[in-house]
Amino acid sequence: MRELLVIGIGAGDPDQVTVQAVKAMNRADVFFVLGKGAEKDDLVAVRTGILAEHVRRPHRIVEIADPPRNRTPDDYEGVVDDWHERRAARFEEHFGAVDGVGAILVWGDPSLYDSTLRIVERVLARGRVAFEYSVVPGVTSVQSLAAQHRTVLNRIGEPIHVTTGRRLAADPAQIPDSTVVMLDAHCTFTQVPGDDVDIWWGAYLGTPDEVLVSGNLRDVEDEIVRLRGELRERKGWIMDTYLLRRR
Amino acid sequence: MRELLVIGIGAGDPDQVTVQAVKAMNRADVFFVLGKGAEKDDLVAVRTGILAEHVRRPHRIVEIADPPRNRTPDDYEGVVDDWHERRAARFEEHFGAVDGVGAILVWGDPSLYDSTLRIVERVLARGRVAFEYSVVPGVTSVQSLAAQHRTVLNRIGEPIHVTTGRRLAADPAQIPDSTVVMLDAHCTFTQVPGDDVDIWWGAYLGTPDEVLVSGNLRDVEDEIVRLRGELRERKGWIMDTYLLRRR
Repeated sequence: MRELLVIGIGAGDPDQVTVQAVKAMNRADVFFVLGKGAEKDDLVAVRTGILAEHVRRPHRIVEIADPPRNRTPDDYEGVVDDWHERRAARFEEHFGAVDGVGAILVWGDPSLYDSTLRIVERVLARGRVAFEYSVVPGVTSVQSLAAQHRTVLNRIGEPIHVTTGRRLAADPAQIPDSTVVMLDAHCTFTQVPGDDVDIWWGAYLGTPDEVLVSGNLRDVEDEIVRLRGELRERKGWIMDTYLLRRR
Repeated sequence: MRELLVIGIGAGDPDQVTVQAVKAMNRADVFFVLGKGAEKDDLVAVRTGILAEHVRRPHRIVEIADPPRNRTPDDYEGVVDDWHERRAARFEEHFGAVDGVGAILVWGDPSLYDSTLRIVERVLARGRVAFEYSVVPGVTSVQSLAAQHRTVLNRIGEPIHVTTGRRLAADPAQIPDSTVVMLDAHCTFTQVPGDDVDIWWGAYLGTPDEVLVSGNLRDVEDEIVRLRGELRERKGWIMDTYLLRRR
């Protein structure tokens, strides 16, 4: 493989790809698609739709299955590290088999809680394959959330804190400034204390299944928990994110 | 005006507009363009280029000049509030004169340190004009910075702090986690103490004038200060942003 393009494709709406991403996709000979169990069918369908709509030159699609991962480990960082190394080995194998330009499509943007760039660096560090690579930025689910709620993430001149459900669970009273929470599988917002917190929540942002709820956290938290459970049950997976802010 | 579209157009690269943004632009009868003194010529040129390339239907461009603003006030929030009210009055006047669909193109994304949505809400709250509005998210300069440096903003599983130069100046030792700094006119990174801080800096991201510097903060801070001064002198304005992270 001569070159690798890591391309952010937006939060779920196929129209959220940029012109730059479309041009990059049209330089690729091979698209590496990463399967992720239950998420796979719907998400791969959206990616395939994006390629069908925007890519005019002949290309191959190569699926790389994720190695299994322990999602509730005691040693979180060690387990993630080991998982990344196993992923890197799989990528190395596929990269080595390509003649030309490869591309990886990343949901949202590759710079935000995504492991693709770390895997690419890891593959290069292993030293068995060599290639140039570049990154095409995309619209994040955070931007999509704010747009659909027609809200600004920051208060005037104030900071924004972006964190994970896991981190929030460690200290739920700690929501400094405007706090965006990603990767929260456990409705951790229910643990945030106080009657003065507002939430802007969204799931499947930018897709036909999009659901939005906003309001005082205490007023809407039960509704979000119920909705989230039902939707996850019905589709088999959920991608959601939310903004919290104390008044 | 029947409807207003607030459209994020990416960080400076004309190709960073999304397909969704292009479709939205092609629904607009009038584009409101906000002038900002010295930035105006170059930036308006990029915007005009985006419209020329992507918009196929007849449209008008209406320039709305910003009212003057005190940039070093004692009462920051009060002065900003007053400035927004004066801007809202100007927008109200222009909105009222339009028959059809209006659009405002916003650099980066409307949810991140941008006042457009607050002005729109303020215009609606004044109650003299009424219209529907929606927001189209865009690629932010933060995503663009990370992409050009081919870096991830967060450490694995850790938070990201997004703040302003003004806030950082108030307590430069305070860079919790990975810290993105925006709107910093005073090279506040030079005040951040310690030999263990890395910086990823970029100016005019995504444009032909793009400049990137990264490395240990103490090693590269003088170069960034020099570059920033020279570039700002040469072009009359600068837009830059950076990521800081303690090792």
